[in-house]
Amino acid sequence: MKLYDAPGAPSPRRVRIYLAEKGIDIPRETVDLRSGEQLSDAYLHINPRGAVPALELDDGEIICESAAICRYFEAEHPKPPLFGTTPLEIARIESWTRRIENDGYAAVAYVLRNSVPVFAGRAESGKWPHLPQIPELATRGGIMWSAFIEAFDDHLAEHAWVANDAYSFADITALVTVDFALRAKLELPGDAAHVRRWHAEASARPSAAA
Amino acid sequence: MKLYDAPGAPSPRRVRIYLAEKGIDIPRETVDLRSGEQLSDAYLHINPRGAVPALELDDGEIICESAAICRYFEAEHPKPPLFGTTPLEIARIESWTRRIENDGYAAVAYVLRNSVPVFAGRAESGKWPHLPQIPELATRGGIMWSAFIEAFDDHLAEHAWVANDAYSFADITALVTVDFALRAKLELPGDAAHVRRWHAEASARPSAAA
Repeated sequence: MKLYDAPGAPSPRRVRIYLAEKGIDIPRETVDLRSGEQLSDAYLHINPRGAVPALELDDGEIICESAAICRYFEAEHPKPPLFGTTPLEIARIESWTRRIENDGYAAVAYVLRNSVPVFAGRAESGKWPHLPQIPELATRGGIMWSAFIEAFDDHLAEHAWVANDAYSFADITALVTVDFALRAKLELPGDAAHVRRWHAEASARPSAAA
Repeated sequence: MKLYDAPGAPSPRRVRIYLAEKGIDIPRETVDLRSGEQLSDAYLHINPRGAVPALELDDGEIICESAAICRYFEAEHPKPPLFGTTPLEIARIESWTRRIENDGYAAVAYVLRNSVPVFAGRAESGKWPHLPQIPELATRGGIMWSAFIEAFDDHLAEHAWVANDAYSFADITALVTVDFALRAKLELPGDAAHVRRWHAEASARPSAAA
């Protein structure tokens, strides 16, 4: 088993934080995104999607998608549970994970992929035909980011962690998303005092350094 | 318990197909998307996200996101399993579900939301500030749709169902996505013979009429 990993990118970090929270250690191989190694013939032979992270199983099967990789390990090592155990916990974690991805993470990706020169012609993650950047989509991403953070701050005013009383995969998703946004020079609009409180606590966990 | 539902929209249909496969019957209330009821004060009071589907629990808590609603019922009623049981089944279903959503469903939404006049100013699903349509994003969606279907057809050439040997949540996601695309006048490019074979089999199940 081997994890194809990349420092600095948000999706592989989601898996690294998850594994650190679970205390799972597996071999990793770094893919150099700066040189475009994820789109090299050698890597596309391993993972035709041209994306990291990817989990290679011992028989060579590749599991793509950070959430799928984490769920693989959750089924192998259920404790401590990071996807919930009761129906309500499970539903809340999935609901917030999706909301953070669709409203927050997508907003940051809109901005970054459609404005940073290195992504010219590669405006969506993974292997695609030539996809030109769309400046108006970066603008849309900025609007969405502000609206998402405002709603997220309201939620965190009344909740210690994102989905339930305990830290979960939804917190991992949110931490990766907020740090991705800060790296992309997006701000936490207004006070966002509750997001800042939550972010400090999530960042203080040893797993955040993974 | 009550499901806020809407005929014709893909995400509520995902939940309806899932419930039909499980043999679960729950009360439903229709939200009239044509008149914009999902953005009315009355509905926003129930679900501030302005989206369907939404599951209202008996204590009034709202679970948003079709995948989260289905996972709630999967935890309550594990059989027949639609999210897998072994780590590998679970990972494959999650991986394909995500891929279909991110590469296929997103492509259709790019096209529809950025080209159909009724979505002017509402170019993303749910309640947002004014978001103008971006014609170039509809173009991008068309390119992505063709590339996705080509890859999906290659996969289905060697697989009866999307993720494992049995029908799963990944098939439900794909069925909803392909029918959403066909309604949006997107085509199955080229032969796509394997997608057509799979689509006929998935559509022949009684749940497809849900």
